[in-house]
Amino acid sequence: MENKKALVLFSGGLDSTTVLHHAISKGYTCIPLTIDYSQRHSYEIESSQKYLKIINLKGHIFKIDLTQIGGSALTDKEINVPTEMNPGIPVTYVPARNTIFLSIAAAYAEKMSIDQIFIGVNQIDYSGYPDCRPDFIDSFKKTINLGTKTGVDGKQLEINTPLINMSKKDIIKYGHNMGIDYSQTVSCYQLDREGNACGHCDACKLRKEGFLLAGLEDPTRYKN
Amino acid sequence: MENKKALVLFSGGLDSTTVLHHAISKGYTCIPLTIDYSQRHSYEIESSQKYLKIINLKGHIFKIDLTQIGGSALTDKEINVPTEMNPGIPVTYVPARNTIFLSIAAAYAEKMSIDQIFIGVNQIDYSGYPDCRPDFIDSFKKTINLGTKTGVDGKQLEINTPLINMSKKDIIKYGHNMGIDYSQTVSCYQLDREGNACGHCDACKLRKEGFLLAGLEDPTRYKN
Repeated sequence: MENKKALVLFSGGLDSTTVLHHAISKGYTCIPLTIDYSQRHSYEIESSQKYLKIINLKGHIFKIDLTQIGGSALTDKEINVPTEMNPGIPVTYVPARNTIFLSIAAAYAEKMSIDQIFIGVNQIDYSGYPDCRPDFIDSFKKTINLGTKTGVDGKQLEINTPLINMSKKDIIKYGHNMGIDYSQTVSCYQLDREGNACGHCDACKLRKEGFLLAGLEDPTRYKN
Repeated sequence: MENKKALVLFSGGLDSTTVLHHAISKGYTCIPLTIDYSQRHSYEIESSQKYLKIINLKGHIFKIDLTQIGGSALTDKEINVPTEMNPGIPVTYVPARNTIFLSIAAAYAEKMSIDQIFIGVNQIDYSGYPDCRPDFIDSFKKTINLGTKTGVDGKQLEINTPLINMSKKDIIKYGHNMGIDYSQTVSCYQLDREGNACGHCDACKLRKEGFLLAGLEDPTRYKN
């Protein structure tokens, strides 16, 4: 019997919300996993759980305080979130974040006998993070299957990245067609306490441009 | 100029203590990293820090509560630590533990501009954990260099596993020759509050046998 369960890394952002609905549309029973890494934009956690309540899905929250390490504008309050997009890897890059997140997801998946993980990484309209590229994902998959019981037992833990080659415009169109209400999702790196987006960070810029190119109204609540 | 700093995953156990002294003997300035994963044998953390005090080395402790996931006798108190060694992967296996630990170590290393990580994994006299094998370590190294700024910047994060092909006997002899006082190290999965070892779990058995075969007195404090 096919295992139709999937663990979906879910931040409540535009990409991971689209991935969640994609997995649901493919017939998976989805278990969303939200990582509370003490990120600057802690409203993200609250918002993600609100969203799951709306669609009546129960998820897990895993807490890992990455401010213990720091080294990123998202995990060290002394480093400001930039308002300009520049070439190269920006200071919002969190060291080894997706390796850490996928490892945690793999541990959950193994514990729950799930062999499908979904993650909303994207290499087209993204912030230049190295851990969003297909080479990394392919390599991680090999590694985790070597380093877990799942792999030794002859099963394969699959890492699904349905958005990896899509532009932000296409992601938004795809989600819109699935009926996603993006007003309930957040992307901004420095949301205020009411969940209003700054409109200036990389995440806001990519999101804004995506709606513009998709020819759809941007439902994001921006700060005045 | 060569970067002679090394981050050493350090639990205060026999293997990681030997690795720490190995790295010191090779001329590295060592930064020990202890992972407090809310393990059953929480005395391990206390003991590791006592040891570092003795050798006058300052380390980091990273807290990640893996009981949030469970699925192992070390992270779920409902699962007992076995007293018999059996073929296959035992219930003391913690899902994806070394992938998680190495990812965290890689994040620290990147933050601190360190390109050498040391870990005391061993595939000879070990508990059958898949994430202690060379194939896994090699694959992890590739993955982390694809998924971090370090790799993109054209540097290589190195994962050093000096004990991987050594028997427990040889590890003990090697450490003994370096002058390590193994009475200050702990291996047991179910240490009591005073740090006495049970003498029956896999870790105790492998350790006992190692001293026996090395022809050295076992300085471990066992429960009466």
